[in-house]
Amino acid sequence: MKYFMEPESVALIGISRKSGPGSFNLMENMIRFGFSGKIFPVNPNSTEILGRKAYPDIKAINEKIDLAVISTPRETTLGILEDCVVAGVKAAIVVNQGFADADTVGKALQQGMSEIAKKDGLRILGPNTLGVINNYNDFTTSFMPMTKEQVPIGLICQSGIFFVGAREFSRNIGKGIDIGNACDVGFCDALKYLGEDPEIRVIAIHMEGLNQGKKFLELAEKIVKEKPVIIYKTGSSERGAEAAISHSGSMAGNYQVYMAALKQTGVIFIEKDGQMVHAVKTLLNLPTMKGDRVAVITFSGAAGIMISDSLERHGLKIASLSPETIESVAKLSPEWMPLGNPLDIWPAVMLHGTEKAYSMALEAVLKDRNVDGVVCVAIGPENEFSFLDVSEVLKGVREKLPDKPVAAWIYGPNSGEIGERFESTKKIMAYPTLDAVSWSLSILKDRHEVLARNGKL
Amino acid sequence: MKYFMEPESVALIGISRKSGPGSFNLMENMIRFGFSGKIFPVNPNSTEILGRKAYPDIKAINEKIDLAVISTPRETTLGILEDCVVAGVKAAIVVNQGFADADTVGKALQQGMSEIAKKDGLRILGPNTLGVINNYNDFTTSFMPMTKEQVPIGLICQSGIFFVGAREFSRNIGKGIDIGNACDVGFCDALKYLGEDPEIRVIAIHMEGLNQGKKFLELAEKIVKEKPVIIYKTGSSERGAEAAISHSGSMAGNYQVYMAALKQTGVIFIEKDGQMVHAVKTLLNLPTMKGDRVAVITFSGAAGIMISDSLERHGLKIASLSPETIESVAKLSPEWMPLGNPLDIWPAVMLHGTEKAYSMALEAVLKDRNVDGVVCVAIGPENEFSFLDVSEVLKGVREKLPDKPVAAWIYGPNSGEIGERFESTKKIMAYPTLDAVSWSLSILKDRHEVLARNGKL
Repeated sequence: MKYFMEPESVALIGISRKSGPGSFNLMENMIRFGFSGKIFPVNPNSTEILGRKAYPDIKAINEKIDLAVISTPRETTLGILEDCVVAGVKAAIVVNQGFADADTVGKALQQGMSEIAKKDGLRILGPNTLGVINNYNDFTTSFMPMTKEQVPIGLICQSGIFFVGAREFSRNIGKGIDIGNACDVGFCDALKYLGEDPEIRVIAIHMEGLNQGKKFLELAEKIVKEKPVIIYKTGSSERGAEAAISHSGSMAGNYQVYMAALKQTGVIFIEKDGQMVHAVKTLLNLPTMKGDRVAVITFSGAAGIMISDSLERHGLKIASLSPETIESVAKLSPEWMPLGNPLDIWPAVMLHGTEKAYSMALEAVLKDRNVDGVVCVAIGPENEFSFLDVSEVLKGVREKLPDKPVAAWIYGPNSGEIGERFESTKKIMAYPTLDAVSWSLSILKDRHEVLARNGKL
Repeated sequence: MKYFMEPESVALIGISRKSGPGSFNLMENMIRFGFSGKIFPVNPNSTEILGRKAYPDIKAINEKIDLAVISTPRETTLGILEDCVVAGVKAAIVVNQGFADADTVGKALQQGMSEIAKKDGLRILGPNTLGVINNYNDFTTSFMPMTKEQVPIGLICQSGIFFVGAREFSRNIGKGIDIGNACDVGFCDALKYLGEDPEIRVIAIHMEGLNQGKKFLELAEKIVKEKPVIIYKTGSSERGAEAAISHSGSMAGNYQVYMAALKQTGVIFIEKDGQMVHAVKTLLNLPTMKGDRVAVITFSGAAGIMISDSLERHGLKIASLSPETIESVAKLSPEWMPLGNPLDIWPAVMLHGTEKAYSMALEAVLKDRNVDGVVCVAIGPENEFSFLDVSEVLKGVREKLPDKPVAAWIYGPNSGEIGERFESTKKIMAYPTLDAVSWSLSILKDRHEVLARNGKL
């Protein structure tokens, strides 16, 4: 994978002379992303592209080439790959569609690519891929613009939608590998690479089909002991499985069998779109959760009921708070206030102010031996009600008591902005729904069990 | 309910002399909201509050008073309500907590309130409520700031969180009634009012417990024939039900029994927080869906697989597109492209541009007799890739062919902004996940069945 992720020299075959909006010029994108290695454009109709000398074909370059990125019509691909072998290229990415994702001709062409890889030792990524992104090396082969941010998130996917739609799926990508139709480089290569990479702390995988099932399971089992692995397996429905075969040409396989086997390895399994983004930030930033007992601090009794419903839905429990915890909040509350868990602190807020009431409550539950994790329900108020914003004071409490996960749900006109404030120091994570809060805590409990089982605590 | 929602004169009992941030002064909030009727502040320690003459008690006012809003310590409440009866007040809102939501004293006080309402004909809303909001009359009794917008959305809730957190639950509120602990005014009164209100086209309800079950069911059955009714019933878990009793003092009741009975009336039942906001905008803006056959147009094969999974999860099907539809997209696609549903138009986009390919595909599926509803997967690109933004062209197509619902999911760096553009003319609604898209279409199918069953098509 090294030649894909950290190449020193790259040949771009079939690169367009057009640049700017609408050209999808991956050379332009690669330069803009900051790649500092050598770039050799290959286009028989040009002598210069974007200020660099262009070559008629890869054999004409006569320099060491780590990686070739090929974006030419499908019928030319096999010939070009053979030229790459001759030119001593180490790795190739085939960007175009029209292979196992298409008709019988395409399937035969892809078969040919697999054979070249096997026979001649050229590693091939794709076809039908945006290639790779490596934010630790300022490198990408994507023809769509990518966000630059060094985050310890490794992504493996079978579709460019996870690159372009990073905002929806993993928020950011530190290092990403789109295996596309996976004619050669597959999940095992990519997982092994990211598993061994010390810069990557969480691995998120989008999987349509899986060929090397046994090898992958063994690898996953080993890697989950060191870092969390999240798998979003699509194609669970009958039509989804059919579509998976037509999309990446891969067998989507039997969902139930995969799910059972992969779950036993300790990976976090995702079934719905929208969950991966929560899983990634949760596992990256929050401590694992030792048990299933959750304390809830809320401005609203109604939200306490909603979170109770969703905690139960995700296999967690409302903790029985210790008498000391109850007492510390009771001191601030009116005498008539029935206190328990969820801990409704609105009356205390009205009497003693938001910061005092909320910080005392959070400190009490974080110290409570009957509590494994905490949910904070908070308000994202309009600006003139900013005294209701508890993000700063709660981050302070959490800093002093870092062992238990704290997840927040924020409601109100500025919930988005206040959510970002909660997350700014990565001590408390905020989620758009209480259901997402509960699910996220549940995977922290699952993760804790995996680490415990493997003696990693 | 008229005296609560459209009062001409209001007495505010126990109003603070403090105003500005942190004072939670509902008089200040009411004036700022634009209420044009008479306001009589009542506070024995002041002669003037916010520039208006203050009265020592309600009996001293000597004018016709439609509504009294009471925010005084609980032990004073019964006496004040009796004064209201003497003063001929029509309706009263008791804002404070500490009644059936609290201890035995509080329960007895609330019982006393119910008796006053029954005996003396004074209608009482609350206790433990923010009261009401009426955006068609610039009126609110909430001490928290409320958003001003005339939307045909009616809300009934048992907690102020649905007022303050409108962004999360219903986005906006046209007319809202927080029944709180419901000592007198309950779900039936509120539902009847909003059901008969021609300005309200969708009713969203948050329900912890329900006393007048039979009457409510009959009412709901009648109203759902005219407008959609959404119920988010909380307290489904054991602990949630316990918490419901402690919160609003109401019996959360047997979830399963409610659910079965209410579902049969044709209400849209919600189980998770985060769904109400989708349900409200879906039922308000999109046409109902005649059947379960959904066409998907996508830039991404992977997204097509994901949506197939989620459609099946929510009881919908991938439509079998007619040969004409396939043909119209095939004309724009490479020869090798396998076309079906989901309809992957990326190759067509690369060849013919985004607008042409996407608008032709949408027109074809909207005209296809095998299709009941449509999902559009689209990109929210960075500014320089704005040619990939199809919001305007799709809205245009939808305008010409308005009979089937079109729901969009947008991914990419500007997905939020492009989502708003999609929704700007209310012809296409955008959702944060494909799962939410599928669920939202499924309730449009449910709604269609209710209307069909009742001969309302």
